[in-house]
Amino acid sequence: MKMIFAIVQDKDSNRLSAEFVDANVQATKLSTTGGFLKAGNTTFIIGIADERVDDVLKIIKETSHTREQFMTPPVSLDNTVGGESTYPVEVQVGGATVFVLPVEQFHRF
Amino acid sequence: MKMIFAIVQDKDSNRLSAEFVDANVQATKLSTTGGFLKAGNTTFIIGIADERVDDVLKIIKETSHTREQFMTPPVSLDNTVGGESTYPVEVQVGGATVFVLPVEQFHRF
Amino acid sequence: MKMIFAIVQDKDSNRLSAEFVDANVQATKLSTTGGFLKAGNTTFIIGIADERVDDVLKIIKETSHTREQFMTPPVSLDNTVGGESTYPVEVQVGGATVFVLPVEQFHRF
Ligand code: NI
Ligand code: NI
Ligand code: NI
Repeated sequence: MKMIFAIVQDKDSNRLSAEFVDANVQATKLSTTGGFLKAGNTTFIIGIADERVDDVLKIIKETSHTREQFMTPPVSLDNTVGGESTYPVEVQVGGATVFVLPVEQFHRF
Repeated sequence: MKMIFAIVQDKDSNRLSAEFVDANVQATKLSTTGGFLKAGNTTFIIGIADERVDDVLKIIKETSHTREQFMTPPVSLDNTVGGESTYPVEVQVGGATVFVLPVEQFHRF
Repeated sequence: MKMIFAIVQDKDSNRLSAEFVDANVQATKLSTTGGFLKAGNTTFIIGIADERVDDVLKIIKETSHTREQFMTPPVSLDNTVGGESTYPVEVQVGGATVFVLPVEQFHRF
């Protein structure tokens, strides 16, 4: 048995919950505030048999990994000379920080 | 020293807190959302000397274990032909998931 | 790699966050309710390389350790015979409970 702590962005949290349900992985969700003042993380606590750790890591990686995304920035009201349009910019979203911890005892009562 | 994570139903959380106080067990409480979409869990984080782990497990088991309970379902407003009464049904409540983790260092500052 | 759980008083939490940012320590913040019914703790989860554990412990100790502070108690309305003044009293504030846990795997995705 291992205990996995996975810290992901809020925006990936619902999809990750759904993937865990599909894979029959029991996860408990904590609402957290994140490293370096980045607000809005979710921390999942997962108890899992040793032989399923790799499966859980794969689910987290596929669902929550860092990726680039094009976003259209909101129009600046200060700066609309001539009505020019705003251009989409590439931003980084997602990302997961994951710890796998040893467990000495596990019980369900 | 061990660290115990205990995830219990919200409905058992206050009674469990009270039992920990009685037993002089220091516990920190996290509000969590639970496995398989079951909302409303509480996670306790407990730091405890090795020789008291069994006592803590016993308290958690006695206070929070799964048990059956009879509940009267709320009257359905869609379906009250003839004013028949609703029957109590047996539901499962409670239950605890518990991890005991090894600790390398423990400090109080 | 180690995982550090640090439980501190809410009043020390913002200063501790700022110190972690200064020291380039990634910390995730949980809002928690504390041992022995003391409300309003914050729990930090920190992932850190082995050789930096002592630095993190030093930051937590310096920022959050128990200390005495003089506070003027609020005037009791039941007891204001003669308009006597209230005297400042010494109270204990701060304090941190810290666990260092072994980590088997650490990933960033
Ligand atoms: Ni991808
Ligand atoms: Ni019973
Ligand atoms: Ni000092």
